[in-house]
Amino acid sequence: MTVRLGVIGGDGIGPEVVAEARKVLDVVLPDVQATEYDLGAARYHRTGDVLPDEVLAQLAGEDVLLLGAVGDPSVPSGVLERGLLLKLRFAFDHYVNLRPSRLWPGTSSPLAGVAPGDIDLVVVREGTEGLYCGAGGSVRKGTAAEVATEESLNTRYGAERAVRDAFDRAMRRPRRKVTLVHKNNVLVNAGDLWARTFAEVAAEYPDVQTEYQHVDAAAMFLVTDPQRYDVIVTDNLFGDILTDLAAAVTGGIGLAASGNINPTRAYPSMFEPVHGSAPDIAGQGVADPAAAILSTALLLDHLDRPADARRVEEAVGAEVAKRVPGEKLRTAEVGDAIAAALAG
Amino acid sequence: MTVRLGVIGGDGIGPEVVAEARKVLDVVLPDVQATEYDLGAARYHRTGDVLPDEVLAQLAGEDVLLLGAVGDPSVPSGVLERGLLLKLRFAFDHYVNLRPSRLWPGTSSPLAGVAPGDIDLVVVREGTEGLYCGAGGSVRKGTAAEVATEESLNTRYGAERAVRDAFDRAMRRPRRKVTLVHKNNVLVNAGDLWARTFAEVAAEYPDVQTEYQHVDAAAMFLVTDPQRYDVIVTDNLFGDILTDLAAAVTGGIGLAASGNINPTRAYPSMFEPVHGSAPDIAGQGVADPAAAILSTALLLDHLDRPADARRVEEAVGAEVAKRVPGEKLRTAEVGDAIAAALAG
Ligand SMILES: CC(C)[C@H](C(=O)O)[C@@H](O)C(=O)O
Ligand SMILES: CC(C)[C@H](C(=O)O)[C@@H](O)C(=O)O
Repeated sequence: MTVRLGVIGGDGIGPEVVAEARKVLDVVLPDVQATEYDLGAARYHRTGDVLPDEVLAQLAGEDVLLLGAVGDPSVPSGVLERGLLLKLRFAFDHYVNLRPSRLWPGTSSPLAGVAPGDIDLVVVREGTEGLYCGAGGSVRKGTAAEVATEESLNTRYGAERAVRDAFDRAMRRPRRKVTLVHKNNVLVNAGDLWARTFAEVAAEYPDVQTEYQHVDAAAMFLVTDPQRYDVIVTDNLFGDILTDLAAAVTGGIGLAASGNINPTRAYPSMFEPVHGSAPDIAGQGVADPAAAILSTALLLDHLDRPADARRVEEAVGAEVAKRVPGEKLRTAEVGDAIAAALAG
Repeated sequence: MTVRLGVIGGDGIGPEVVAEARKVLDVVLPDVQATEYDLGAARYHRTGDVLPDEVLAQLAGEDVLLLGAVGDPSVPSGVLERGLLLKLRFAFDHYVNLRPSRLWPGTSSPLAGVAPGDIDLVVVREGTEGLYCGAGGSVRKGTAAEVATEESLNTRYGAERAVRDAFDRAMRRPRRKVTLVHKNNVLVNAGDLWARTFAEVAAEYPDVQTEYQHVDAAAMFLVTDPQRYDVIVTDNLFGDILTDLAAAVTGGIGLAASGNINPTRAYPSMFEPVHGSAPDIAGQGVADPAAAILSTALLLDHLDRPADARRVEEAVGAEVAKRVPGEKLRTAEVGDAIAAALAG
């Protein structure tokens, strides 16, 4: 069965790491029909548009999407992030933003006394609501009387499907634990909605252990006791912060993969490394493609090919374990080595 | 000159740690007229009210306030936090929520390779705006069609006074660096207001080095490179998360002090440990009073007694450095030892 793959290299190191991810996909997924999309800062400067409707419609016809990174210092902050990345997440109803964090063998945590295998958590970050809706505005901009608002929109519908996904995932993991993270002592409306939804869904999963934590406490525990987490479910903004933090305690953003998933398959899901476009090292062939390649493992899971997904993860893990600390990494060599290991 | 001190022990371990902080204040600030306020869960259960107007008016007549902790599992989440703690912060216009994080000699960071002296940062968390205003609501609560909102309110007036305070503080510190943390690629209205305000104020402080970071990146850098920070200025919610994280990387919340400050002195400022009421260990006399005692150092700074403030910090530092890892701590003994050292 041919898999239609939409490829958005994007900005900075995005195209470089995506090229390596594709080498790996070429090995494990032979029947791929890939289409490259020219989106990002270069297109914006050339044409003035970010994501035209006809391109969005074409992307909607793909089975899965692979994205590198979005954002460039030459474009005002927010234009590409909101106009391209968030537009895709919202248009394709990517309500599960899936972000696993694992301390891989051969990598070291900045935390003292934490060994590979100790940390193995996954964050289900709600991807279509909260403060990411763009529901805000300003008055008297640029004056001393300026007021700016940002509104967080939350629905039972949106919270419930994310929470359900978290519980379903927990049931497939050995520890079967879900932690809800919010700030329900301050954000009483949204926090109460999430907490009630969580309690009601939890009642349907008696085998799953549950806990609740405020986001400030969770940030602390990710540093002092990351081992305690199995599945974390949280809203869009808290998920953004906690997943970068979880990446940091598991050796850094170089290995952090993510999936923007629509589990109903009504729209194509999109897989991307958590890291950004890193303009400072773009074009030098020194970016670590591991996170992009690990994102293809999540893509393979989504295509119901878990055995291939695990093979990719193992190949990445083996390559990372072989790295010599301090030795300069070449993007293409990492991709070649992992692809060769998978082909052999 | 007599200092009128309002004391709110509050809930859980609050009264226990505040008692030790008062022992220390009795030594360094001889002319104190203290009034204890019965506020918190017990009063709420007894009377049904949280902070009556006449008590608020009485508190307004104090020079400074010392608060233990607020929150109890027997009271619905948010009632005491919003009705007491946040009500005081807003009513007394505590626009500078000051939270220093220092790795004290004798304490150890959960981060590998970080030594005492390496981390010395202070967060200026805006305390009167953002998502903490309580501007949210719900419709169709409890149904499948429930919608809940939370609104973040931000003003030039509010951002500017916090940013200015951060730059003034940086000028009094050796490194003279201010980092603005926000999320201006997503929260474009509020983020842009903060970024423009920051740039304009920065222009008046040519000797201060500046940087901007998204909150997700800042969470990561607090783990991978906390040494980079001097003064961080950020909004209310981001400040809540980042200060708990900064406390965690500097050895935990047991040493995290804070001041809710109105620099204009139009209202009494309020000093409190960052930790919560810890109901699990309340009443046992085992809570660490160090954070409450360190909060009195911030109180002394506010009363323009920096020499006394430094003496208190040194006495706490010396006591902490003498602790034997694993040995059980007694709240009263810690307070007695620090007070005795200061009296001696
Ligand atoms: C680039 C930005 C809009 C994005 C987000 O905030 O979601 C990024 O930080 C991420 O986590 O994927
Ligand atoms: C108790 C809660 C309302 C409070 C806050 O969120 O500000 C606390 O976490 C803090 O940081 O002082």
